[in-house]
Amino acid sequence: MEEKKWSELWLKYTEKEKRGNDKLIQGVYLKGFDASDAVVKSALEEWTAGLKGMYGMEPAMEENPNAGVLSLIRKADGRIRKEGYELLEQDGCLQLLAGDEKGLLYGVFHLLRLISMEKDLRGISLLCNPDNPLRMLNHWDNMDGSIERGYSGNSFFFEQDRVIVDGRTRDYARLAASVGINGVVINNVNVKQAATYLITDRYFAEMKAMAEIFAEYGIKLYLSLNYAATMELGGLDSADPLDPGVIAWWEKKMKEVFERIPNLGGFLVKADSEGRPGPFTYGRTQADGANMLADIVKPYGGIIIWRCFVYNCTQDWRDYKTDRARAGYDNFIKMDGDYHDNVILQIKNGPMDFQIREPISPLLGGLKKTNQMLEVQVAQEYTGHQIDVCYLIPMFKEILDFKTYCGGDLDTVADVISGRTMGNANAGIAAVCNTGNDFCWTGSELAAANFYGFGRLAFRTSLSAEEILEEWIRMSVSNEAEVVETIEKIMLPSRETYEKYTSPLGIGWMVTPHVHYGCSVDGYEYSRWGTYHRADHLGIGVDRSDKGTGYALQYYEPNASMYNKMESCPEELLLFFHHVPYTYVLKSNKTLIQHIYDSHFEGVEEVEEMIRLWESLQGKVDTGVYENVRRRFGMQLSNAKEWRDQVNSYFYRKSGIADERGRVIY
Amino acid sequence: MEEKKWSELWLKYTEKEKRGNDKLIQGVYLKGFDASDAVVKSALEEWTAGLKGMYGMEPAMEENPNAGVLSLIRKADGRIRKEGYELLEQDGCLQLLAGDEKGLLYGVFHLLRLISMEKDLRGISLLCNPDNPLRMLNHWDNMDGSIERGYSGNSFFFEQDRVIVDGRTRDYARLAASVGINGVVINNVNVKQAATYLITDRYFAEMKAMAEIFAEYGIKLYLSLNYAATMELGGLDSADPLDPGVIAWWEKKMKEVFERIPNLGGFLVKADSEGRPGPFTYGRTQADGANMLADIVKPYGGIIIWRCFVYNCTQDWRDYKTDRARAGYDNFIKMDGDYHDNVILQIKNGPMDFQIREPISPLLGGLKKTNQMLEVQVAQEYTGHQIDVCYLIPMFKEILDFKTYCGGDLDTVADVISGRTMGNANAGIAAVCNTGNDFCWTGSELAAANFYGFGRLAFRTSLSAEEILEEWIRMSVSNEAEVVETIEKIMLPSRETYEKYTSPLGIGWMVTPHVHYGCSVDGYEYSRWGTYHRADHLGIGVDRSDKGTGYALQYYEPNASMYNKMESCPEELLLFFHHVPYTYVLKSNKTLIQHIYDSHFEGVEEVEEMIRLWESLQGKVDTGVYENVRRRFGMQLSNAKEWRDQVNSYFYRKSGIADERGRVIY
Repeated sequence: MEEKKWSELWLKYTEKEKRGNDKLIQGVYLKGFDASDAVVKSALEEWTAGLKGMYGMEPAMEENPNAGVLSLIRKADGRIRKEGYELLEQDGCLQLLAGDEKGLLYGVFHLLRLISMEKDLRGISLLCNPDNPLRMLNHWDNMDGSIERGYSGNSFFFEQDRVIVDGRTRDYARLAASVGINGVVINNVNVKQAATYLITDRYFAEMKAMAEIFAEYGIKLYLSLNYAATMELGGLDSADPLDPGVIAWWEKKMKEVFERIPNLGGFLVKADSEGRPGPFTYGRTQADGANMLADIVKPYGGIIIWRCFVYNCTQDWRDYKTDRARAGYDNFIKMDGDYHDNVILQIKNGPMDFQIREPISPLLGGLKKTNQMLEVQVAQEYTGHQIDVCYLIPMFKEILDFKTYCGGDLDTVADVISGRTMGNANAGIAAVCNTGNDFCWTGSELAAANFYGFGRLAFRTSLSAEEILEEWIRMSVSNEAEVVETIEKIMLPSRETYEKYTSPLGIGWMVTPHVHYGCSVDGYEYSRWGTYHRADHLGIGVDRSDKGTGYALQYYEPNASMYNKMESCPEELLLFFHHVPYTYVLKSNKTLIQHIYDSHFEGVEEVEEMIRLWESLQGKVDTGVYENVRRRFGMQLSNAKEWRDQVNSYFYRKSGIADERGRVIY
Repeated sequence: MEEKKWSELWLKYTEKEKRGNDKLIQGVYLKGFDASDAVVKSALEEWTAGLKGMYGMEPAMEENPNAGVLSLIRKADGRIRKEGYELLEQDGCLQLLAGDEKGLLYGVFHLLRLISMEKDLRGISLLCNPDNPLRMLNHWDNMDGSIERGYSGNSFFFEQDRVIVDGRTRDYARLAASVGINGVVINNVNVKQAATYLITDRYFAEMKAMAEIFAEYGIKLYLSLNYAATMELGGLDSADPLDPGVIAWWEKKMKEVFERIPNLGGFLVKADSEGRPGPFTYGRTQADGANMLADIVKPYGGIIIWRCFVYNCTQDWRDYKTDRARAGYDNFIKMDGDYHDNVILQIKNGPMDFQIREPISPLLGGLKKTNQMLEVQVAQEYTGHQIDVCYLIPMFKEILDFKTYCGGDLDTVADVISGRTMGNANAGIAAVCNTGNDFCWTGSELAAANFYGFGRLAFRTSLSAEEILEEWIRMSVSNEAEVVETIEKIMLPSRETYEKYTSPLGIGWMVTPHVHYGCSVDGYEYSRWGTYHRADHLGIGVDRSDKGTGYALQYYEPNASMYNKMESCPEELLLFFHHVPYTYVLKSNKTLIQHIYDSHFEGVEEVEEMIRLWESLQGKVDTGVYENVRRRFGMQLSNAKEWRDQVNSYFYRKSGIADERGRVIY
C-alpha cells in the first residue's frame, strides 16, 4: 500500500460512536436534484465515504422518502437562499433541504461534521444560509513551487513552472468545500515570470483540468493577474487602461481565457503596490484600471477583485508626516461610487499589514458605494510562522464585529462585507491561505484550525471562536472531553499570548526584516517601509491623532474621537495611535514601561503553561500530531524568550527605568 | 577588433614623456640568466611590451653590456637577497642586478613603474629586498562563480563549477607579480561542494594549467582545503588528525596532488570556525590538525597556513562575560611553540573582523615561537563595499608599525611577520583580495589602489601610504600634478572619513546584518555573533578592561595598562575597551555624545568635499574612470547621510541629550 503523502485533516472519517444516528440514514433519497450533476455526485460520494469510515455503513439509494432514510430535497424559497440549506429531523425522517447543488453539498458536509463530532441528529432543525456571498482563499503560490509567506512546505499547485493536478487537488477542494469556500485564487498576487502565462495557451489544459475538479466541489477558480500583461504578453508598449489598444488586447485575451478555462470566476489584481505595475503609471485612477478589466470580463460573468494595498513603500524614516496607515483610505476613498458593479475592492483588515494587533481599516465601511471584500491572513506571516501557536479566529471575530458607524443598524464590518449594509451581491471575505505540501498541510497540525475556522466563519459569521475550535478539535484530533478542553485551553488565548511576548499595545512590527519571524526591535525603524515605533528615551508610539498624522480622523464618529484621545483610545491600540511616555499610567495602574516588562514575562510563562498542557496529552492524541506540535513548542519557547529579553532589554536600555519586580533584564 | 573585457590597470602602458630615459635602454643585455626560463621570459616580454607602449621602442637583445643598454645581471650576495634586486645607473649604464629570476622580474616591473611615472632613471641607485617572505592574496571565490564578500562582479577563476584559465588569468598574474605578490589562494576559505574536489582528478588538468601561468610570474598556487575531505572525498568516518586512517588518506592524497599540480605552494585551512569542521570535533588541538597536514606536505616543500579565526559564533547576547575579542588569543596562545616549521598561523589584523578601526590582535607577537602571517582585508567588506572610497594603506601601515613589546628591538608587527623578530623564514602577509570580473577588476576604479598598495607594502613595509598612492595614481590615472594632488586629497583621508560617518571610536559593527553595508545600529546587538556595543541610556562601549572581560590584559605591557585604563586608552579605540558615559569629556573637550554627533556631520561634509574634488577632474581623467567613480560617489553620499542620521537619531533617542549646535536629528 502506498504511503499517504498528505493527511485528510478533519475529513479523515475514522470510526465514531453512532448514538442511534445510524437508524436515520440507512438509505439516501434524492428529489429535485440530478444525481449525475458533478456537485451532487461529490455530495453523494462524500456522504458514502464518510459513513463508510465513521459508521462502517454503505447506504443505498432509495426510491421513496421513508423514515430511516436521508432525504435530499431541492427546495428554493425565501428562507433557503443561494448556497443555503436546512436540516430537519422529525419522527425518524431526516431531511436536507437545499436551494441549489452547492447548498446540498454544504448540507452533507454539515451532517458529516455532526456525525464526526458524535452529535445526536434526532430533532435537528437548522437553517443555514451563508453570510458572505464570496468566501475565498488566496494562495500566494509561485510557479517555481515556492510560496510567498508559506510555512508548510512548497506549493501543491505548482512545481518548476508546471501546474500540478493530482489527487491532492481533489482533497484540497474537498477540504475547502467542507468549510464552505466557494472561490480560490491559486497564484500569488505578485504575478511574475511564468505566472503571467497562466492566461495563455501554455497552461490552458492544466487550468481547465484544475477548474473542473474545483467545479465538482462548487468552487470557482480565480487567477491573480499581471496588470502589465499587455506589455509582457501582448508586446504593446502600454498598460494604460484608457488606451484603445490595451482595451482591445484585453478583450481578445479575456474571450480566449473564458472560453478555454471553464468555471473561471474572475481575477485578483495587485496593482501599483510594492513595485507592481498599475494605472498610476499612466496618470489614471485605480477605478480606471479596475473598471476597464471589469467591463471586459462582465459578459462572461467574471468579476475583478482589486486589492487596496497601495502605499508608498519607499518612505523616508525621517519623515514624520507621511503615514502608511493613511494610504489605503487616501488612495481609494475619493473614488467611492466610481467602481463598476463587478469590481470588488479587497481590503486588508488593518491599515498596515496583518500585525498581531491593528485597528480596523477605516476603508471598510468608509466606502459607502463600493463593493468590498475583507482580506485576512490565515498564513501566519507576522503571527508565528505556524511554529508559534496562534489561533486567529478570535481576531477575525473582533474584525467582523467592529462597528464602523457607516450609518444605519447594519454597520459592522460583517454587515458591510456580507452585502447587508448596501444590499450588494458582490462582496465577501478572503483569506491568504496557510497551506503547503507538508503532510499535515499547514506546517503545524494546530494551524489547520485557522484554515478550518476561516471557512466556517466566512460562511456563518455568527459562530463563536469557541464553537469553531471545538468543531475542529473534535473532527481533527479527538472527541474525548479532556483532549478537547486541553486544546481549547492552549489555543483560545494563544493570540493574546503571542501578542504579550511580541510587540506591545498595537505598535506592531519589531520583527526581523524580510523574514518576519523573531524579534528585531529596530529592524524596521530606520527603513523605507513606513513601519516605525518612534521609541526614544522618554516614550514610544506613533502620534496618529489630529496633532500627528491625522489617521484617527479617517474613522466615523464616535470612533474618530475615541481613537484621537489618549484617554479614550482602547489600550490594546494605544501605541498605534499615540506617542506615550513610559511613565504613563494605564488602566491597570501600571506604567507603560512596567506593562511592557510584565506582559513579556507573562507571555513566556504562558507558553511554558501551554507546553505543560500539551505534554499532558501524550498518548491521548495521535503520535504524529503530538510530536509535530511538541517540536514546534520547543521553537516557540525559545522564540518567546528571545522576544521577551530583546524587547525588555531594549526598553530598559533606552528608558533607564528598572523593572519594579527586579527580574533579569540584560 | 574585439573589445577588451578587462582593463590593465596600472600596466596599461600608454605613451609617456621620455625625459631622456630612452637613451639608456636602446637594447637589453642578459647575463647569468637563461632567456628561455619562464620567469625570465615573462620579464623580457613585459619589458618589451612596456617600452613599446610607453616609448614606442622595440629594444633588441645585445651581446655586450654597452652604455645605452639595460644590463640584466645575476648577482647573489649578502646584499641582494632572495627575490631582491638592485637598480644602478652610472655613466649611461643602467644595471638591474638580481639574485634570482623573481628578483629580475620585480626589478623589471620597478623600472617600468619609474618609466610610467615619468621619473628620471639617470643616477638611480636602489637596493630592494622584499621585507616579507610570503606576500599573498587570498581570494574568497566560490566555484559557482560567486565571491564571498566580492563587490566587483563574479569570479574570474571559477564559473558554474568550472575552472577558467584564459587571457585574464595571465593579466591577473602580471598585475599581482608587478606589485611583488608571490602566492595566491584562488578559492574561498569556506571550502564546500565542488571546491572540495579541487584536489581530485576532476580539476587537476585546469589546476596545472593555472599553476603554470602563475609560475611564469613567480607566483605559487595555493588552495584552501576542506579539513573534512577525508570524510567528504575519502569516505572515511573521521577527520581526527591522530587517526592513522586519516593520516594515511592524506599521505596518499597529497602525493597525488603535488605530483599532478606543479608549482603548488601548499594550503590554507579554515578549521573549527563559523561552522567549518576541524580538530576540535575530535578533542584535538589546532596544532594537532595543522601539524598532521604539515608533516605530510613537507616532503613536497609545501606549507600549511592555518587561520586563527576561531571563536564561538553562537554566543548569547545576554552573556556579558564571553568576549569574542579574546577568542583568537585564548584558542592559540597555549600551544605557542607546538607548531611545526612549515605551519604558519594566519592572524587577522584585529581581534574581531576587519572593522574600520580595531586594536591590533594580541596574538601578533603574543606568539613568540610560532610562524605568523598577518591577514588584512583589501576587499571592502566592512569598509564600504568598493562603493565608498576607503584607501586602506594608512590602516595597514598603522597595523605594521604597532609596537607589540614582545621583546627586543624588533617587536613591531612588521618585524614579527617578516621573520625579523624570530629569524624564521615561513612568515609574511596575506590580503583578502578585492577583485572580480568587472572591467576595472575592483568595482570602483579607486579601489584598485588598495590591491596595488597592498602588494607594494607587503614587499616594502617602509614605503609610506603617500608614496604608494602617488605611484598608483601616476601609473593608473595620470601624471598631471593637479590630478595627482586632487586624488590624494580625496583618498588619503578617506579611511578617517568613512570612520567618521560610521561606527564611532572603535566600537565597530552597527552594519546591516549579513550584507555588512549600510547602517543598522542594533543590527548585531541581539544576535549570536559576539559583536555588541552595549549602548544604554547612559553610555556605550564594551568593558574589556580587567573589570570587564579582561581582553586588555592579553597585551604585553605597557600596552595592557594603556588599554586597561579609560584615561590612557587611545581615544580612537575608547569604546572598544570601555563602557563610557555619553557625558564623558574627551581630549577634544567634547563630550562623547557631542563627538558622535559632530563626527557624523563632519563625515558627510567630507564626502561632499570629496565629490567636489572629483568633479573638478572631469575632462582631466579618462571618461570611463570618471563616470565609474562619480556614480559611486552618489551612492556613497546617500550611504553616509543614512549612517549619519541613523546613528545620530539612535543616540539622541537613547540618551535624550540634544546636539549642542542644534542641527537636525530625527
